[in-house]
Amino acid sequence: MERHFEGNLQTVRERLLAMGSVAEAMIHKSVKALVDRDEALVQTVLAHEEEMDLLCIEIDDRCFTLLALQAPMASDLRFLVGGIKINSDLERIADQAVSIALRARSLITQPEVKPLIDIPRMARLAQDMVRKSLDAFVRRDPELARTVIEADDEVDGLRDQVFRELLTYMMADTSTIPRALGLVLISRNLERIADHATNVAEDVIYIVRGEDVRERGDKELRKGLRLPAPKRG
Amino acid sequence: MERHFEGNLQTVRERLLAMGSVAEAMIHKSVKALVDRDEALVQTVLAHEEEMDLLCIEIDDRCFTLLALQAPMASDLRFLVGGIKINSDLERIADQAVSIALRARSLITQPEVKPLIDIPRMARLAQDMVRKSLDAFVRRDPELARTVIEADDEVDGLRDQVFRELLTYMMADTSTIPRALGLVLISRNLERIADHATNVAEDVIYIVRGEDVRERGDKELRKGLRLPAPKRG
Repeated sequence: MERHFEGNLQTVRERLLAMGSVAEAMIHKSVKALVDRDEALVQTVLAHEEEMDLLCIEIDDRCFTLLALQAPMASDLRFLVGGIKINSDLERIADQAVSIALRARSLITQPEVKPLIDIPRMARLAQDMVRKSLDAFVRRDPELARTVIEADDEVDGLRDQVFRELLTYMMADTSTIPRALGLVLISRNLERIADHATNVAEDVIYIVRGEDVRERGDKELRKGLRLPAPKRG
Repeated sequence: MERHFEGNLQTVRERLLAMGSVAEAMIHKSVKALVDRDEALVQTVLAHEEEMDLLCIEIDDRCFTLLALQAPMASDLRFLVGGIKINSDLERIADQAVSIALRARSLITQPEVKPLIDIPRMARLAQDMVRKSLDAFVRRDPELARTVIEADDEVDGLRDQVFRELLTYMMADTSTIPRALGLVLISRNLERIADHATNVAEDVIYIVRGEDVRERGDKELRKGLRLPAPKRG
């Protein structure tokens, strides 16, 4: 039973990694579709969506069933609850990549506003953050998770830079406005992906912190229940 | 012990409702700050942020402790896991309201682009969605949750309308571009709030579906573990 349970945890871990790889590929392809003006890549991104949805449902079911049947100890409990949260962030990352691909599909039928430099940089950073947050998850490495959280500032900096630059284009030539706005919104999609990777990294820290809780044992845990009385009114 | 556990679940429910009320107030005040050009309201929204963060941590701790100590049955388990997810969506709604308030703070120092009609409408819709999703949670009412999910399309429609209209202003007068962009981004914040409310509504359906799972008993649950073997490679 114990070995069976470990095997099931391992499956959850593998599935989340698989989802992470697909999410990374989706980010990469959606921005490559834009840069290379490649409609076929838009289609590949859209084709990944169903795969992600199925993985997401499977992982949720697995985590929930393990929680329900095994009444796991604190560390495994935190892993499973964290897994459910990470799962939902990965699904939302996929949604953002789909949104980028759809905007790209429209933008590549029109003339380029400018050569794209910062948006692909943002995409690479966001991809790195997704990969590192999942590496941190597999290795239970809170230090690596912290580097992901720190990288978020860099993404926000690039987002502001993209915004300022495109604003200049829009002011100089109103005909660029609709296309430039499309690019601004893509930079916001990338920002959101980075935010979700940051959430995953925070969950990793929460999962690892759970191991400390287990070391401290049930007494500390029980103390957690003595929280301030509910305020009425 | 059983009664104690029920009391603890009730506390989690009350805390989530309290968070929902604060989140609603934050949405309302952040957009009112913009419409009434009221800097003091911006401050009130920012002042709510810490309260929300503390509630969020408290709810997470309570849910986790109950999961760890009580090894709850399927229905309560789903309630607690759903509670953790709803908690995280409510926190992110608060983040979006803060983001609206900060944009409003900058916009109200500049001349108005246009009288605001659709953005306050979006805000009211988003607020309704937050309230109804939490009502659905308290009443365990999947039908009400479904109306929230349906309302999301209306918000998306307004978002597109806001976008098209502001685009016209920007094209006609480039001096409006920075301010109009601020309004576009506020409409995107509201869209994200509606998305989070939709997530809450989906979690409510998941929580209620959990009661069915309990009725079907452990045998059905165990079947859940017989999932396709992991694909390697």
